[in-house]
Amino acid sequence: MVGIIMGSDSDLPIMKQAAEVLTELNIPFELTIVSAHRTPERMFEYAKTAHLRGINVIIAGAGGAAHLPGMVASITPLPVIGVPIKSSNSIDGWDSILSILQMPNGIPVATVAVNAAKNAGILAARILGANNPAIQEQMVQYQQGLQKAVEAKIKVVKQEYPNGFDQ
Amino acid sequence: MVGIIMGSDSDLPIMKQAAEVLTELNIPFELTIVSAHRTPERMFEYAKTAHLRGINVIIAGAGGAAHLPGMVASITPLPVIGVPIKSSNSIDGWDSILSILQMPNGIPVATVAVNAAKNAGILAARILGANNPAIQEQMVQYQQGLQKAVEAKIKVVKQEYPNGFDQ
Amino acid sequence: MVGIIMGSDSDLPIMKQAAEVLTELNIPFELTIVSAHRTPERMFEYAKTAHLRGINVIIAGAGGAAHLPGMVASITPLPVIGVPIKSSNSIDGWDSILSILQMPNGIPVATVAVNAAKNAGILAARILGANNPAIQEQMVQYQQGLQKAVEAKIKVVKQEYPNGFDQ
Amino acid sequence: MVGIIMGSDSDLPIMKQAAEVLTELNIPFELTIVSAHRTPERMFEYAKTAHLRGINVIIAGAGGAAHLPGMVASITPLPVIGVPIKSSNSIDGWDSILSILQMPNGIPVATVAVNAAKNAGILAARILGANNPAIQEQMVQYQQGLQKAVEAKIKVVKQEYPNGFDQ
Amino acid sequence: MVGIIMGSDSDLPIMKQAAEVLTELNIPFELTIVSAHRTPERMFEYAKTAHLRGINVIIAGAGGAAHLPGMVASITPLPVIGVPIKSSNSIDGWDSILSILQMPNGIPVATVAVNAAKNAGILAARILGANNPAIQEQMVQYQQGLQKAVEAKIKVVKQEYPNGFDQ
Amino acid sequence: MVGIIMGSDSDLPIMKQAAEVLTELNIPFELTIVSAHRTPERMFEYAKTAHLRGINVIIAGAGGAAHLPGMVASITPLPVIGVPIKSSNSIDGWDSILSILQMPNGIPVATVAVNAAKNAGILAARILGANNPAIQEQMVQYQQGLQKAVEAKIKVVKQEYPNGFDQ
Amino acid sequence: MVGIIMGSDSDLPIMKQAAEVLTELNIPFELTIVSAHRTPERMFEYAKTAHLRGINVIIAGAGGAAHLPGMVASITPLPVIGVPIKSSNSIDGWDSILSILQMPNGIPVATVAVNAAKNAGILAARILGANNPAIQEQMVQYQQGLQKAVEAKIKVVKQEYPNGFDQ
Amino acid sequence: MVGIIMGSDSDLPIMKQAAEVLTELNIPFELTIVSAHRTPERMFEYAKTAHLRGINVIIAGAGGAAHLPGMVASITPLPVIGVPIKSSNSIDGWDSILSILQMPNGIPVATVAVNAAKNAGILAARILGANNPAIQEQMVQYQQGLQKAVEAKIKVVKQEYPNGFDQ
Repeated sequence: MVGIIMGSDSDLPIMKQAAEVLTELNIPFELTIVSAHRTPERMFEYAKTAHLRGINVIIAGAGGAAHLPGMVASITPLPVIGVPIKSSNSIDGWDSILSILQMPNGIPVATVAVNAAKNAGILAARILGANNPAIQEQMVQYQQGLQKAVEAKIKVVKQEYPNGFDQ
Repeated sequence: MVGIIMGSDSDLPIMKQAAEVLTELNIPFELTIVSAHRTPERMFEYAKTAHLRGINVIIAGAGGAAHLPGMVASITPLPVIGVPIKSSNSIDGWDSILSILQMPNGIPVATVAVNAAKNAGILAARILGANNPAIQEQMVQYQQGLQKAVEAKIKVVKQEYPNGFDQ
Repeated sequence: MVGIIMGSDSDLPIMKQAAEVLTELNIPFELTIVSAHRTPERMFEYAKTAHLRGINVIIAGAGGAAHLPGMVASITPLPVIGVPIKSSNSIDGWDSILSILQMPNGIPVATVAVNAAKNAGILAARILGANNPAIQEQMVQYQQGLQKAVEAKIKVVKQEYPNGFDQ
Repeated sequence: MVGIIMGSDSDLPIMKQAAEVLTELNIPFELTIVSAHRTPERMFEYAKTAHLRGINVIIAGAGGAAHLPGMVASITPLPVIGVPIKSSNSIDGWDSILSILQMPNGIPVATVAVNAAKNAGILAARILGANNPAIQEQMVQYQQGLQKAVEAKIKVVKQEYPNGFDQ
Repeated sequence: MVGIIMGSDSDLPIMKQAAEVLTELNIPFELTIVSAHRTPERMFEYAKTAHLRGINVIIAGAGGAAHLPGMVASITPLPVIGVPIKSSNSIDGWDSILSILQMPNGIPVATVAVNAAKNAGILAARILGANNPAIQEQMVQYQQGLQKAVEAKIKVVKQEYPNGFDQ
Repeated sequence: MVGIIMGSDSDLPIMKQAAEVLTELNIPFELTIVSAHRTPERMFEYAKTAHLRGINVIIAGAGGAAHLPGMVASITPLPVIGVPIKSSNSIDGWDSILSILQMPNGIPVATVAVNAAKNAGILAARILGANNPAIQEQMVQYQQGLQKAVEAKIKVVKQEYPNGFDQ
Repeated sequence: MVGIIMGSDSDLPIMKQAAEVLTELNIPFELTIVSAHRTPERMFEYAKTAHLRGINVIIAGAGGAAHLPGMVASITPLPVIGVPIKSSNSIDGWDSILSILQMPNGIPVATVAVNAAKNAGILAARILGANNPAIQEQMVQYQQGLQKAVEAKIKVVKQEYPNGFDQ
Repeated sequence: MVGIIMGSDSDLPIMKQAAEVLTELNIPFELTIVSAHRTPERMFEYAKTAHLRGINVIIAGAGGAAHLPGMVASITPLPVIGVPIKSSNSIDGWDSILSILQMPNGIPVATVAVNAAKNAGILAARILGANNPAIQEQMVQYQQGLQKAVEAKIKVVKQEYPNGFDQ
């Protein structure tokens, strides 16, 4: 199971994209708010017990001085995926990225692109698929789906620009 | 098994730190050079066959316009960990970070800090441990080891600054 | 002939400016979608065969972790012009610029300004004109056209600010 | 009393400058290592009990994804001064600055310049002096000392450049 | 008493948030405009006399080349909290941050996040509470209030995502 | 006389602010378009003859890869004030700033803030006043005007926040 | 023929790498110093006559506020390759990159990576090969040479890490 | 006369380059230390009296949160040239640049490149020459000298690369 957490409900419009892609892939998840700064004890409990509660991967989103992913990673033995969120007073997202990415030796966070909660969901699926052939096969098909979506767009563009590349 | 790849042998001094931590954790790995730009066909073959050859997680390091992690991630269904390398003509590592981190929807790369190959190895172990209680337990112990190393340093510092915090 | 490619149809509003300026200059081109990350095999085929299909210059536009221009350049012997695109989740365009510009030794990409697909088209024309006096002469005239457009604006501004420089 | 903490003993060469200036000002302090990432429980205990143990101000230094100052500030009611440290794999200090500075509403960290542990010590003294006329007077004198040190340098420079400003 | 100053009335919509949180906490303050660049003599007088007029902490907000917090800090012995303001021609707030944060040895400014006047007010309260148990207790309660606000949001989110973490 | 030039009529809304403040100060100026890139010969002529035509100071505004101020400065012996303009495809103004500011040894450009054409006009007046007591006196009065404008705003703010600083 | 120019002899250690790779590829070139800022008339003459003197591609390197590539491109109809040079007082190369890359509509510069004079030479060869099958074939072989060099390194790395990927 | 000031004697190795070029040009100057932060009253006096003491242009150098140029400009009616200095704990010079450059409307500082004290001296000379034909003529000759120095280097380079451009 994937645990999705975020520092604030203002992060939900972004973070629900992780839930949506996991739903689409039939991968169970739970989602809640855990704030490193406003509910530090809850954060502590969450991180300490997640692997005991059946969670396999944690997705944590946060903006600004984004400490949630790194703090959770320092307590849990699970892989933690960090989603930097470009919140209202963020400095173009740089603060979130660097606060999540630049973790010290010993405590990695798997950082994805700014606001890329959807990719965090897919990365969680890939992680679960690392030892699970059925999920891995789903990932192969997901990538073929991406390819087909592009092929459809190629045909649309071809109507305006007919002499493109056909392979 | 973890597959460690890098764009050039000049990345080896950094990337071997992933190999070292995996050795320390008794997690099997293979290590080789795969260049997205100089051996694109080899990169293609590597990425296409990795999951069929028994690899569960890929660690890919690259500097500058670092395309290796993202290109491999676009072909394999496995989780790919990207290590941005601050190479000689890199612009303080920014080029490597952004080229690896800012992947489009559908194709995530689990990015770690600049030059953080050691953390990439630990993240690979956490990923393998997501469904493997023995490796997960190793991770719990690894984190306790980090804590003990700090406790030893606390004692050293206490000799010079005796009235610190004792809990 | 110029080959114009882009990673996604969302890049078309920018990239069609390359097509428009080439149309204006009577230089033949083809335009299609080729995604490094979503259609890696198509990208491979495109890059491998472009010079065999009569293409002389490739213009490739991409945003975020923009791997298309560099990957195509690693496979084709043709000159590749890269257009960094400031897409929606780009970090002010920095990710696109650095992913395209900072290519390693051996595989250059001719990078133009952010969103500068029009300039990519003009650069393609200059490249074709490097060995073609007729196109080179067109370029001389194009530059004279730029100058005339400025001269017309000078006259307009002179109506409000009459005592300017007259040469 | 001032509590000085840092994430690692590698921060000590910088952070001891806070201890030195407090010693010079006869302000009592304690100094120890508390790592948010490697000893999260110790960090928790430290922050929860500091104000109960007679500490009035906390100075916390950390590098990279520097979570210590902000996490401590989220648990303690005391003022927390954060010192961003330009550690070896830091990206020119930007990661440390933004991880400490950009705290969310409700939990401020008083951030000083990169590596400015000395200024953190002086700021702690100013804070203690906010309600303490004796320490405040010390601060007035400290600033006069800075002025006198400059005046001495003015005289040295005057030997080479005699016709300067004399007031 | 807290003295709140700002360089221009255009900073008032941000800076009044410091006044509001201090009002909420029943901490007396005064608020006025003091411009380092347009009223340098007033700035001088303000800084020289603040501690003599019963002010204990100064909050100074400014944008662009933001000299007000640092200049006031160079004259007063009081702790000065600097609020970088992302004004209209600011370069994404970087100019304000760096002009306030990077003060030389001897003259610290307690810098908070961009536009974080509310946090400046809370930091002022923490500073006053450093030697005042009643205010310190208020801070403890303020932090509990933050926690309760998050808990209320957790319940709202739980309605859409029922199987979250319950501790 | 002050010569105001800009690379394009799209810069006029910004650059006319230089003209307005010079008009207000009764300092004669001329204003026209001179493009380094589109009318290089006109730029050359302008720069070569400006000091012979009675111009004493040049104000040059440009955006993006802003070469106009530096190129003019390399040809004229006059002081050149550069105004970086945040144009539509500029990268937050950084390109304009660095292209104007970072001139090599021997050829300075007096750079002002992004879009600060008004300040360029005032700087031109200060330069003319360097040897002209009447203009210098105007500058003294201009600065007193700035001060008075702030004082008026202080009174307005005092209505809402009555107990401010009165000196 | 390729024309290689640079703003100063201090750029020669970098720029001679373009000459070396062209020598290796048997492509004729000339090399000289042309300074946009110190010899503007020479720059003008160079750019105006290059295509009349048998030059087909220009490579221009410059550091800091790097105007040479863009100014030459505004005068010549030839393709101009710009090499940003990280000179001693450059700001990490950002000034050179942005001054060369961010050219306005109508006047492109083909920008390569920081200090990448070697890649500029290869790009010039690709441009000459756009209409020249023999040079194009050389480029195919050059890329095969890159691949072989990597293959040799793969073997060396295999001695230390024997169980790598063999395709 | 030119007044050269700097915040600290550690700035002298850079700032003396302004003195040297003015000596070379026979333009009188004075040089001293004036610290905005450590001697604010001296700074005030200096700025208030400079134009009364015969100074025509002020050159002010400072590093980090560099307030000296802007504060002096807010008090004096003279043109102020600001030199951003890349001091030891500066963040690559960005803090100095932005603190000097981004002045608010009404109070310009003529900013030159990082560490460009020599250019500050030349700019001061151009400013004095704005109304002084003899100094202006010196500037014409100074620029011819720059050109001759390049021409000498062209000859040296021609020995290794004989077939360059001869005009």
